[in-house]
Amino acid sequence: MEPQFVRLDEVRAFELAAGVSGRPLFGEGAMLNLIRFEPGATVPLHSHPHEQLGLVLEGMQALVVDGVAHEFGPLEAYALPGGVEHSAYCGPEGALVLDVFAPVREDYHERWRSQSSA
Amino acid sequence: MEPQFVRLDEVRAFELAAGVSGRPLFGEGAMLNLIRFEPGATVPLHSHPHEQLGLVLEGMQALVVDGVAHEFGPLEAYALPGGVEHSAYCGPEGALVLDVFAPVREDYHERWRSQSSA
Repeated sequence: MEPQFVRLDEVRAFELAAGVSGRPLFGEGAMLNLIRFEPGATVPLHSHPHEQLGLVLEGMQALVVDGVAHEFGPLEAYALPGGVEHSAYCGPEGALVLDVFAPVREDYHERWRSQSSA
Repeated sequence: MEPQFVRLDEVRAFELAAGVSGRPLFGEGAMLNLIRFEPGATVPLHSHPHEQLGLVLEGMQALVVDGVAHEFGPLEAYALPGGVEHSAYCGPEGALVLDVFAPVREDYHERWRSQSSA
């Protein structure tokens, strides 16, 4: 893989959930995903084997883990081991969040590629 | 490892180079590092086997790879495979950057732990 340099906010977006879009940068062992929550959007309870780290950039994102909501503002970060069930919601103004996954979410890669050919 | 939730800008900082500090969040297979460049600070040419991704949050950071300077502003991102030699400098106002490494930089973990006992 060659070095990559991109304006992440100009990468083609794909839909993660209603009102939640992602703009990804795929590395070899890890990936970035710039997530935009529209006001009121939510991500339903789910899990994946990939570790997930992230940082809130704008607005408020809450991660709900074991029934406890952790509400974050800008520069608040998280690390969820793989397999941990979680859901998410945002504040009234929406949120901009950088998610990091290790290893790469091949399901996202496939969805992002398939939306590119649409 | 348990889920972690932190204010990344309040994590204890460690020095990466003169005028360049990092505030880390260590996961299992990947880590975040919130980097602050003071105006005029630089990171000398180096390499590591870890893949490095990242996103500029404030100011300008340049990564120099193969003698070519790639200058980035906010929301510009990069992915460098492991082993790629690179150096970095920032704009006149300094920079705030989120670096991501996979796997975890155990050398950083050791330095961060050792500085905590100082």
